[in-house]
Amino acid sequence: MDIGFVGLGRMGRPIARRLIEAGHDVVVFNRTPGRIDELVFAGARAADDVAAVCRGRSVVVTMLADDAALTDVALRPGGLRDSLSAGAIHVAMGTHGVAAMSRIDAAHREASQRFVAAPVLGRPEAAEAGQLGIVVAGPPDASEDCAPLFEAIGRRTFDAGTRPAGASAIKLANNFVLGCAIEAIGEAFALVRKHDVAANVMQDVLTDGLFGCVAYRTYARIIADEAYDHVGFSATLALKDATLVLAAGEAARVPLPGANTLRDRLLGAIAHGDGERDWAVIAREQARASGLG
Amino acid sequence: MDIGFVGLGRMGRPIARRLIEAGHDVVVFNRTPGRIDELVFAGARAADDVAAVCRGRSVVVTMLADDAALTDVALRPGGLRDSLSAGAIHVAMGTHGVAAMSRIDAAHREASQRFVAAPVLGRPEAAEAGQLGIVVAGPPDASEDCAPLFEAIGRRTFDAGTRPAGASAIKLANNFVLGCAIEAIGEAFALVRKHDVAANVMQDVLTDGLFGCVAYRTYARIIADEAYDHVGFSATLALKDATLVLAAGEAARVPLPGANTLRDRLLGAIAHGDGERDWAVIAREQARASGLG
Amino acid sequence: MDIGFVGLGRMGRPIARRLIEAGHDVVVFNRTPGRIDELVFAGARAADDVAAVCRGRSVVVTMLADDAALTDVALRPGGLRDSLSAGAIHVAMGTHGVAAMSRIDAAHREASQRFVAAPVLGRPEAAEAGQLGIVVAGPPDASEDCAPLFEAIGRRTFDAGTRPAGASAIKLANNFVLGCAIEAIGEAFALVRKHDVAANVMQDVLTDGLFGCVAYRTYARIIADEAYDHVGFSATLALKDATLVLAAGEAARVPLPGANTLRDRLLGAIAHGDGERDWAVIAREQARASGLG
Amino acid sequence: MDIGFVGLGRMGRPIARRLIEAGHDVVVFNRTPGRIDELVFAGARAADDVAAVCRGRSVVVTMLADDAALTDVALRPGGLRDSLSAGAIHVAMGTHGVAAMSRIDAAHREASQRFVAAPVLGRPEAAEAGQLGIVVAGPPDASEDCAPLFEAIGRRTFDAGTRPAGASAIKLANNFVLGCAIEAIGEAFALVRKHDVAANVMQDVLTDGLFGCVAYRTYARIIADEAYDHVGFSATLALKDATLVLAAGEAARVPLPGANTLRDRLLGAIAHGDGERDWAVIAREQARASGLG
Repeated sequence: MDIGFVGLGRMGRPIARRLIEAGHDVVVFNRTPGRIDELVFAGARAADDVAAVCRGRSVVVTMLADDAALTDVALRPGGLRDSLSAGAIHVAMGTHGVAAMSRIDAAHREASQRFVAAPVLGRPEAAEAGQLGIVVAGPPDASEDCAPLFEAIGRRTFDAGTRPAGASAIKLANNFVLGCAIEAIGEAFALVRKHDVAANVMQDVLTDGLFGCVAYRTYARIIADEAYDHVGFSATLALKDATLVLAAGEAARVPLPGANTLRDRLLGAIAHGDGERDWAVIAREQARASGLG
Repeated sequence: MDIGFVGLGRMGRPIARRLIEAGHDVVVFNRTPGRIDELVFAGARAADDVAAVCRGRSVVVTMLADDAALTDVALRPGGLRDSLSAGAIHVAMGTHGVAAMSRIDAAHREASQRFVAAPVLGRPEAAEAGQLGIVVAGPPDASEDCAPLFEAIGRRTFDAGTRPAGASAIKLANNFVLGCAIEAIGEAFALVRKHDVAANVMQDVLTDGLFGCVAYRTYARIIADEAYDHVGFSATLALKDATLVLAAGEAARVPLPGANTLRDRLLGAIAHGDGERDWAVIAREQARASGLG
Repeated sequence: MDIGFVGLGRMGRPIARRLIEAGHDVVVFNRTPGRIDELVFAGARAADDVAAVCRGRSVVVTMLADDAALTDVALRPGGLRDSLSAGAIHVAMGTHGVAAMSRIDAAHREASQRFVAAPVLGRPEAAEAGQLGIVVAGPPDASEDCAPLFEAIGRRTFDAGTRPAGASAIKLANNFVLGCAIEAIGEAFALVRKHDVAANVMQDVLTDGLFGCVAYRTYARIIADEAYDHVGFSATLALKDATLVLAAGEAARVPLPGANTLRDRLLGAIAHGDGERDWAVIAREQARASGLG
Repeated sequence: MDIGFVGLGRMGRPIARRLIEAGHDVVVFNRTPGRIDELVFAGARAADDVAAVCRGRSVVVTMLADDAALTDVALRPGGLRDSLSAGAIHVAMGTHGVAAMSRIDAAHREASQRFVAAPVLGRPEAAEAGQLGIVVAGPPDASEDCAPLFEAIGRRTFDAGTRPAGASAIKLANNFVLGCAIEAIGEAFALVRKHDVAANVMQDVLTDGLFGCVAYRTYARIIADEAYDHVGFSATLALKDATLVLAAGEAARVPLPGANTLRDRLLGAIAHGDGERDWAVIAREQARASGLG
């Protein structure tokens, strides 16, 4: 396929590389320069702006950090909406809020373009290995047209229906369930520590039995070791996601008490100076609220 | 070993049977009669009361449903405290509150007896197969003396230190972490459903990736299928555990916001008539609060 | 009336004195001695134990600190249940849990006695001035028989129906609403302080307008001045009440999210060493959670 | 003074009229036409657009419904920022979020204009009577210059410092404290009702004593009478304010657990179809969660 690609951050680069290596014709653009060389070396062409990325492309992928960046790339004058030809597809692979998705969806529809949400599950290493999970929502024909693209980068797709906001909801909810698990681990550890039991006993019990999966193995260890300075995902970024999931709840009239708790622990952690530590640091905030350390 | 055993319910019977089959000399007693025959047939002797169970025993195991039953068996006139000889061990394998454990521990110490908390992880089938996890806390010599007993029934022990209440805290926290996972699944499902995505898409996403473990596989399926009438653990019993974990938090001055949310959903579910359904029914309560169904 | 009176603490003494001064024939007893002299001087007779207080009395009032004390006085051998004559009335004026009230009510009924709950609203100064509010629940004839007693000590009675637990629920709920107001003030102050506005501006706004009443005037001032060492009601006692209101909610299947928040702030305050400060110190705990101070 | 006035809704009209009646020279503009006649009849001049309102004015007041309207009026091409002369003052009297205030403040500073936040406390009747409370924050000289304006419409000003966002925080926090009071009343009523006591007993107890102020008298009555169809402030509008107070908390890193509870009850009420009822309807949502009615 002929593919445009906007957003070459930690996730965007390995995804773009996979597309190139699978033989697709890829034009890339990044708003801040300097990350393009390796992809050009791998076979991509560099575009000077968003409009140039769109020229003659049937699909343009965005992998952007937040709603502001996506909205800017998509909707400003000369952006995707203005530059894509009728029938072309915008595939948004970042983690975005439902309101931004709905707004961009409406704009593309009005311009007779097609918009597909395809947020990905997995870390940069999974992207490099082509092992991402991809949650896809959009017009069925557009999703089908993107199948070769998804095959090149993912292990599996999940069909989240025809409304792009639905894929965002799934992705945000997945992160949120992880946050709840971290919060629960933090509460459990604080409880047993104040009953004079070492945290790693709780860690063993949890991960030996019901919770023998990546989420608990990873985060129970980080929390037991208080290894918050090795940052997979910072508290500040996690707050952004927590705010997005609460906004998704507000839009659909869904109270999410677990998300409130998560958000409050993140706010407390950031207020105490832990904003750039790994979001598992909410367990330290729980410890603080319990009079520990 | 010569073992007394009090409490022959769904968990107590298979555990007692394992002890008999391992060659231990077991005397059994149940407060409500009628469940003893199969164990007598397997080789146990039946006692007429708690005092008779204690006679000549170096270890007496209790596997009782709640704190009231345990306190009654241990502390009433003619109970374990009055009947065990000095140095004998009371092993409490039920799920109990930290206050009850501390009170019973003090009573046994005063009577020069030894008290070991050994709550178990696993369902009746695991008990039958000798595959329980056992969280052990008590005087180190007493825990060691019980090693043959634990070997007969468990797959693994976890050392939770010397204070029996610590083992209770671990066990309650483990259940609580599970409750938080169920609550999070319920919130996630309500969110995506109100964004027009079927619950089973969320189920697939969760259990395919980060959460590929028993807890999430089991409960995401129950909730997606709304299979609340197949009851593994009722909402009413779960409320008892939630109250115990909150009391453990109160005793140690640990706020547990996740436990508050769990307890409130359980109360709401019970208020709506779902008390005898599986505790995963809190997801229905979440749906209700979201205006679904 | 001929009245027995048990419990001569900070509230009990002024209430008993009002009864004596109103011309009632009063016999008093306190479990810890030494507080009786002033009442004997005022005209009361001193009894040696609960049984002696009950002798020949048609009404016995209890004003006790907690459920354990009340249950002990009422239900132990030789207590009120054993000593009151048939038809006599036990009036419980303390703040008690709904479960204790229901249990004591049942015991008195079984002994053909009458039980009236009459928790009071107001502080010791109001008791001295005969200006208490009294929430009354019990058998209508018993409540009527107590009218002269209530007239001597109170400004007003509130009819809370025929079930004693109902009066407890009202009293606990009243305290709880106050706790929620304190919590809200604490959150509001933390918010404006972190937006660089002094707390006393918020205090002025609140108490000038919608909230020009004792609750807000009193607590907004305490919190703005951080005057937590002048203790009207300690955080530790407030935790007891918060636990009772949550138990009342659990008994009736009522989730009380505001009570969860209140309880968690109290636990945090106590964990941080503020347990014996005024319960308004939960505002300091809120400040702490916000990274202030 | 020569005053421009934008926003002639339920609050804007009586405020503008007070200014005219106090002898100020007032030019008015409303984005939707038709509400201007009565003010012109009272002595105002009508402007055709925002730019015309600004012409020759030293002060322009805005009283707009939300952040979107304010941002549009202030920042779009031809808006206040573009049209006010250097040194002129924009006084924003609506209830706005802290982020919008900071953004508009920065824009006016850049244009050498002065920005004063002056959100008002009170309902339309208070505005008509010139009895509003006014929370003022901005450059001290600008606030002073506005004194005659504030005197014409208010009973009292509150000095919230020099940052406009601070006045917003005060106003939002005041509404939030009221929401918490309503929530607490709703929880208390649900609790006593499920203990078989009529809600109006609780109402009497609350408002007779600690809570004898407008907030509790008003809302306890609405809730006891379930008079939610007489709408002072709708649940949907209250949700907007709850979201703004949470955003103010997020901006300043302040967890607000009471605001979470309030927001969730509002969401639940709206999900159940009560969005256009008075926000006291959150008490009905609490009742629903308790299995009542």
